[in-house]
Amino acid sequence: MTVFHTTRRIEFGDTDMAGIVHFANFFRFMEAAECEFLRSRGLSVKMEWEGQPIGFPRVSATCEYVSPARFEDLLDVAVAMERIGGKSVTYAFEFTRTGTVVARGKVTSVCCKIDATHRLEAIEIPAGYRARLTANAPTA
Amino acid sequence: MTVFHTTRRIEFGDTDMAGIVHFANFFRFMEAAECEFLRSRGLSVKMEWEGQPIGFPRVSATCEYVSPARFEDLLDVAVAMERIGGKSVTYAFEFTRTGTVVARGKVTSVCCKIDATHRLEAIEIPAGYRARLTANAPTA
Amino acid sequence: MTVFHTTRRIEFGDTDMAGIVHFANFFRFMEAAECEFLRSRGLSVKMEWEGQPIGFPRVSATCEYVSPARFEDLLDVAVAMERIGGKSVTYAFEFTRTGTVVARGKVTSVCCKIDATHRLEAIEIPAGYRARLTANAPTA
Amino acid sequence: MTVFHTTRRIEFGDTDMAGIVHFANFFRFMEAAECEFLRSRGLSVKMEWEGQPIGFPRVSATCEYVSPARFEDLLDVAVAMERIGGKSVTYAFEFTRTGTVVARGKVTSVCCKIDATHRLEAIEIPAGYRARLTANAPTA
Repeated sequence: MTVFHTTRRIEFGDTDMAGIVHFANFFRFMEAAECEFLRSRGLSVKMEWEGQPIGFPRVSATCEYVSPARFEDLLDVAVAMERIGGKSVTYAFEFTRTGTVVARGKVTSVCCKIDATHRLEAIEIPAGYRARLTANAPTA
Repeated sequence: MTVFHTTRRIEFGDTDMAGIVHFANFFRFMEAAECEFLRSRGLSVKMEWEGQPIGFPRVSATCEYVSPARFEDLLDVAVAMERIGGKSVTYAFEFTRTGTVVARGKVTSVCCKIDATHRLEAIEIPAGYRARLTANAPTA
Repeated sequence: MTVFHTTRRIEFGDTDMAGIVHFANFFRFMEAAECEFLRSRGLSVKMEWEGQPIGFPRVSATCEYVSPARFEDLLDVAVAMERIGGKSVTYAFEFTRTGTVVARGKVTSVCCKIDATHRLEAIEIPAGYRARLTANAPTA
Repeated sequence: MTVFHTTRRIEFGDTDMAGIVHFANFFRFMEAAECEFLRSRGLSVKMEWEGQPIGFPRVSATCEYVSPARFEDLLDVAVAMERIGGKSVTYAFEFTRTGTVVARGKVTSVCCKIDATHRLEAIEIPAGYRARLTANAPTA
């Protein structure tokens, strides 16, 4: 798969009293970039798939903060699908500002079916969903 | 009804690069105080009531910012039920720090029933819910 | 002044358990739209102006919620400068989704100079800043 | 050091449309718990120390999500100082609900001095700060 790119403009409300982006916000940024990547493939983190509501709750998330981002910075966000298992997918993200690395992170999500009361049960990623997700992956 | 009081400790992530609480956060604080008031009466903004899921989506919210609040400030939050209509309720909030007013706000919510697909329909506040909400209101 | 338009894509993290955008987030959206409007004029809510750090802390904010917005909705955000006083400016916002009104809000900010310890003091909006802000306002 | 405990009540605004706490919020919860731990020792993540403003920006943060947390859940948050280096400190957090693990996370912060323009420079953790931080650490 080629790496997917999007951008993120830092908003005033993303900053904290240290004058930089509050560290927790990078996880929101990663999720938004992941969703934009999925949207570009006609997919979503929460959707009906063959009549069944599915979602991708996170099982782990990590971020390393390399250099601060500030109000009005326009960050590039690179999204790569690092690993796809039977039920889970791991994305790797890199935030840069004009070539300088700001942060790197990873998020692992598990495919779940969701019932009307929000209960989650892990399932195999549906074949059609997987096909769209992995289309144009680089062949060895 | 006597005024309900709770407290709110300002967290680092509540601040912005101006060194003060970001203005949007006061709406989260109001909601949390409202929920704590409701919880003290065995109620909630989202619950099963007589077998029917109900919720209280907001139809309006306002806040006036009188003086800034800063990291680690411990605010007093006063919650008063300003008006209760057939389907809606308006709360008034006052945030103070050692007697100094920080902010004043209002939130109006409408009682809705919620179906499994999150669709909302305004309904009369159920009689039992209303009774618990208004218990100990001052008599004229 | 002609009305300024931008867009806002609803993110997963903007929603709450009611399945709709959490009401407090509209205030973040308003601020982001205001900043984008200002940026289009070479201005900001926090900047150096003639060697003096200035900011625009909010003194009031209101929002009316007309119809819910949901994950992945693409909202149009209209920004109008409703009133400009000596020290303050009021913006009016309208959020629509394919023509349907989602929410309307207002935010009033006061021009302040900021010292190194984050202390704020209200000042007249600098003449040059005001000129840029109001350029192309409709003449009577 | 004995483990420090605090609690966290899940607020409506902490949830997302999956009906559970949005994963990014656990990082805010960790920070708040860290600050409460520090406060219990007369310390802070941002303070004057011997006339010098210091702060503890994060260099890495991770979280594993074990079971979902929902609106109004009251979580126990255990805070342990996992490692203290010359310039950095790593905290480990465990969130439980009536004994069931909800999430586990770690945050590493680096001690920095901060100038008036928010520029950060890593420094050794001041001896007095370190002493208060590590007081009552278990001896081998």
